[in-house]
Amino acid sequence: MDPSQVTIPPLKDLTIENITENTVLINSQCPDPRLRYVLERLVSHMHDFARETRLSTKEWMTGLQFLTEVGKTCTDVRQEFILLSDILGLSLLVDAIDHPKPAGSTEGTVLGPFHTHDPPTIAAGDSISQDPAGEPLLVICTVRDTSGQALEGVKIDIWETDSTGHYDVQYADRQGPDGRCVMTSDAQGNFWFKAIKPVPYPIPHDGPVGKLLRALRRHPYRPSHMHFMFEKEGFDHLITALYLRGDPYESSDAVFGVKSSLVVDLGTVGEGEGDRRIRERYGVRPGMAVLKHDFVLVTEMEARELRERNSVSALEMLGKKVRLVDGLPVPDVD
Amino acid sequence: MDPSQVTIPPLKDLTIENITENTVLINSQCPDPRLRYVLERLVSHMHDFARETRLSTKEWMTGLQFLTEVGKTCTDVRQEFILLSDILGLSLLVDAIDHPKPAGSTEGTVLGPFHTHDPPTIAAGDSISQDPAGEPLLVICTVRDTSGQALEGVKIDIWETDSTGHYDVQYADRQGPDGRCVMTSDAQGNFWFKAIKPVPYPIPHDGPVGKLLRALRRHPYRPSHMHFMFEKEGFDHLITALYLRGDPYESSDAVFGVKSSLVVDLGTVGEGEGDRRIRERYGVRPGMAVLKHDFVLVTEMEARELRERNSVSALEMLGKKVRLVDGLPVPDVD
Repeated sequence: MDPSQVTIPPLKDLTIENITENTVLINSQCPDPRLRYVLERLVSHMHDFARETRLSTKEWMTGLQFLTEVGKTCTDVRQEFILLSDILGLSLLVDAIDHPKPAGSTEGTVLGPFHTHDPPTIAAGDSISQDPAGEPLLVICTVRDTSGQALEGVKIDIWETDSTGHYDVQYADRQGPDGRCVMTSDAQGNFWFKAIKPVPYPIPHDGPVGKLLRALRRHPYRPSHMHFMFEKEGFDHLITALYLRGDPYESSDAVFGVKSSLVVDLGTVGEGEGDRRIRERYGVRPGMAVLKHDFVLVTEMEARELRERNSVSALEMLGKKVRLVDGLPVPDVD
Repeated sequence: MDPSQVTIPPLKDLTIENITENTVLINSQCPDPRLRYVLERLVSHMHDFARETRLSTKEWMTGLQFLTEVGKTCTDVRQEFILLSDILGLSLLVDAIDHPKPAGSTEGTVLGPFHTHDPPTIAAGDSISQDPAGEPLLVICTVRDTSGQALEGVKIDIWETDSTGHYDVQYADRQGPDGRCVMTSDAQGNFWFKAIKPVPYPIPHDGPVGKLLRALRRHPYRPSHMHFMFEKEGFDHLITALYLRGDPYESSDAVFGVKSSLVVDLGTVGEGEGDRRIRERYGVRPGMAVLKHDFVLVTEMEARELRERNSVSALEMLGKKVRLVDGLPVPDVD
């Protein structure tokens, strides 16, 4: 860029007191109002963080080296930055902001770093797990909209660990997907499959995030759960999970994901006449564990309206005058 | 960790409103009060950033992917996270907080990502540059304390680019150090060497930081400068640089490093009798460019007192009650 084209005021003699406004000023050349706003808030908070902690050069370097190590730990099948965001509560917060749920709909929770794009598509009743050591589990679900209407053709991504608490991608010799699938709800909004009973497991803690957890004296465990992701044209993308009640980590999840409405009790297929239909329909034997759940999706329009209403009122409470561009706030400078 | 040892309150049903206090709460198990404070401020600012921008899942993922790319761009000879910190004004801010300078001492500035630990140790008068295309420059300096006392035995690290604006480490086929040295001040506090006239250059902009600068419509240039780093037992570590007056980027440095007190005018070795001593003493011919500068170091004690005084008064102004542990603030909870 030709320096003669620089139209901002001189940036020289920057100090603890004036560096923030000047950084914001030079970034304000950005033509995208949303990126400008995001950067303005980012720079302000980052600088305030340094000022409030009186961050030392040594600590700054330790932090940059930590972030470098986090980046270097990321691979095609491991996302250490998502993990870092998870254990600092940011992931849960962003999901709550972006996917607000009206009463009666299924709550969302953290995506986690183990979703992949290669799961097999299975038919109703198939098993998603090839782990012979897992305790068999029959999963019977429905998916509806907020008015109770069954939703057909919803694409559902499901993933869980094996019986040792590891996702397939955590094995160096992974041959292909295991413990995961994609399926589609039928005309009655039903989808069902066989899986294994989820177990608690530690998030990967052999990397920089594990080091941080140890320094903070936090355990790396997540309570037993199964991930679900729902996609259907016209409906808000739902990333959620079901948690087993009574898990030892139910109220100390390392990534803050547990919500009461997502905690479920497992049942058991009985021997009596009452369960004959379930035994026949799903081809299972008495004693098998059963997870039943009804999911409720929100339309994109409902989600968008609620998200925008929440945004405007939250930012008003913070004293910020904003307008929405593509549904996201930018300062209203007029 | 045995879940029965978890002594914090249940972490469940976390929302936009309560996630921050609960994240801080679980991190408060950390036994190190300084790390606890740094994390508390970090989590609070990160969460406020997400709340104030109503950060979307897509933006969050873009951000994490950007940070991942920054980490992956780092090598033994390239530190992209330092570069990111530089262009966001954080580096300058942290240096200003950690190395406060009383009036009359030499101001500090950004370290940048190109300092290495392998420069050759040279004797007074040696050249630090092997670039035949560079314009020869004689550099004559002194280093003193704030009372004007000459400082002997100061270790000085000096580094600059070649005449094309590239540091040695930016060449894939780098054979060894060039454009850099370590030398020591003599009994009169003098040090002098031959170099080449610094040129303006762009910071590396072929990576994610370059992408960000382009999105922000910022140029990547730094004005012509030469880096200096001073180390002597009992004195505060000084990282600084000298900038050439009149550089086209003097007031729009991409990393905010320029300070008026560090901007210098070059002289020229004259032909007359007046410059005979300089020609003889330094073995140079008329017409050679000369940079003269007197550096002033602050003692560790002066720096520490000033840093602590600044910390306490800045945090008082922010309404934070703190005490200092190893010179760094932590909340004073008693």
